[in-house]
Amino acid sequence: MPPKFIFTNVIGSFVFNENYNPVDAVLFKDFEQFKDKKEFEGKLQKKHANLEIPEGRDLYNILSYFKDKKFFSEFYKKNLSFTKKSLKESVNNDSLIIQTISSIEELDKVQNILTKRLREWYSLYNPEASNKIKDHEKFVSLIISKSKSKLLKELNVDEKESIGADLKEEDLSSIMLLATQINNNYRLRSHYESYLSKIEKKHCLNLAIIAGVTMAAKLIEHAGSLRRLAEMPASTLQILGAEKALFRHIRNKRRNLPPKYGMLHEHQLIQKSHRKMHGKVARALADKLSMAVRIDYFKGKFIGDKLKKELVDKFKIQY
Amino acid sequence: MPPKFIFTNVIGSFVFNENYNPVDAVLFKDFEQFKDKKEFEGKLQKKHANLEIPEGRDLYNILSYFKDKKFFSEFYKKNLSFTKKSLKESVNNDSLIIQTISSIEELDKVQNILTKRLREWYSLYNPEASNKIKDHEKFVSLIISKSKSKLLKELNVDEKESIGADLKEEDLSSIMLLATQINNNYRLRSHYESYLSKIEKKHCLNLAIIAGVTMAAKLIEHAGSLRRLAEMPASTLQILGAEKALFRHIRNKRRNLPPKYGMLHEHQLIQKSHRKMHGKVARALADKLSMAVRIDYFKGKFIGDKLKKELVDKFKIQY
Repeated sequence: MPPKFIFTNVIGSFVFNENYNPVDAVLFKDFEQFKDKKEFEGKLQKKHANLEIPEGRDLYNILSYFKDKKFFSEFYKKNLSFTKKSLKESVNNDSLIIQTISSIEELDKVQNILTKRLREWYSLYNPEASNKIKDHEKFVSLIISKSKSKLLKELNVDEKESIGADLKEEDLSSIMLLATQINNNYRLRSHYESYLSKIEKKHCLNLAIIAGVTMAAKLIEHAGSLRRLAEMPASTLQILGAEKALFRHIRNKRRNLPPKYGMLHEHQLIQKSHRKMHGKVARALADKLSMAVRIDYFKGKFIGDKLKKELVDKFKIQY
Repeated sequence: MPPKFIFTNVIGSFVFNENYNPVDAVLFKDFEQFKDKKEFEGKLQKKHANLEIPEGRDLYNILSYFKDKKFFSEFYKKNLSFTKKSLKESVNNDSLIIQTISSIEELDKVQNILTKRLREWYSLYNPEASNKIKDHEKFVSLIISKSKSKLLKELNVDEKESIGADLKEEDLSSIMLLATQINNNYRLRSHYESYLSKIEKKHCLNLAIIAGVTMAAKLIEHAGSLRRLAEMPASTLQILGAEKALFRHIRNKRRNLPPKYGMLHEHQLIQKSHRKMHGKVARALADKLSMAVRIDYFKGKFIGDKLKKELVDKFKIQY
């Protein structure tokens, strides 16, 4: 009986005759060969002319052939190792970006918790400095680098008037250890930002130029991957992160206006523009971001600076 | 007219005659003199015999004398500086303990957030290790000190079977920076524990021996100060931290049993005893704690080890 069908699974590429008995086969040694299955199929098709891909009844019978127990362990082993291999290879720039931006977000949360605690503790010693220096990061670096009297002098507070207690060296050093740790967290955060910008330079330069390093990462995180972000219409990108407001609007159109922006709200261009312009700016920004991310995904050339310049010129806002 | 009344305020000690005119006075120069007011009053009383402390109508008239505007700025200045001084001196071991234990608690929260993040990130590289090592602290210190292949070997995982990706040096080092930071947090936490135990050694040794270093601090934190803790009945101490359950019980006695313990729940003695004994153990523990804290507050001698031994012997549980 002449060979008639060709059928491929994780074990190999098989040729069957009309009675559904195998007459020829190429077995795959590893994942690489399985990925190149088209090549192996091509070789078999050259060797045996006019092979068909089975359908319907034929496919059913060929599949029945593989129901034999002797194949089971082979299927299990191959499938498991191929799955492991795919998992291993699924780690890409997207996952690194997502992990890094998540860590940055967690670090921000952590810094907030710890700095509040530090301020309360340090206030026993020097409440005036804690009250006068509002910015967390600046506060931490100042109290590390400067003594109490120097700090009070710079803040124009008479040291004699200070209501802070005179702590013993040991008590003070316990506070300072916390401050140092928080300062290290700030340094770690800025390391992650530059690490992000390095990955994005290779992965999504256009997007990063227009959105900024952290926002680009947040957009990818929210969408799940660069591909999914590229597949989104600009209007979806515009309100990404405002899903709650959007569905509130859909449920009750009269009382709830549709959201103008979601995550884009934090973008400099929107922050710096007039309230009344927010919707307009968000729409234009989403348009450009959508273009940029598609160019990035399809490995187009770099036009991020041009797109950014168009936005800057249009709204007369530098960022 | 002979001098008759003696009256003291922040400005000084004054002697008045029957017509409520000042005839003699000692003015206080600073807070120290104000604190020693009894001494100054004594001197005046020696100088002028039979001085009375004004009451009723007399007091009213003497107070009226100080209503004169000429005293106002003096009162303001003195009161302000005395308040500042008291604030400065209000920082004591209680406040240091409370600040330290709060920092430990915040660090625990932070460690949880960051280690979860680290596990997810590190899982891209070595998911088997993350799954097999359950304890956060051990996990962090192991991945810092050991390479992936060494770690997998120790966990009896074939490295070829690992589904973790092979990360580039730079990508891996970003993960390791987070791990190092978390590890430093653990070290900071243990520093704070030994710092706490140092303060407690001077401040509340009996309590610390029976409750343990961190729980002693938590009890003081919850009560507000060692004094307030010492003033509590043992039964209040027993359910400290279970206020919600207590009030639920008071509102609806039938459905809600009174709580057996609050913060004491974490204590080794209760943790190690049988469920049915929990209430009994908590009551005995609260009794001993209550004794201990009173001895500490009134600067009694050290009997913490004796009290602890009684508990250990009674319930046959070592801690």
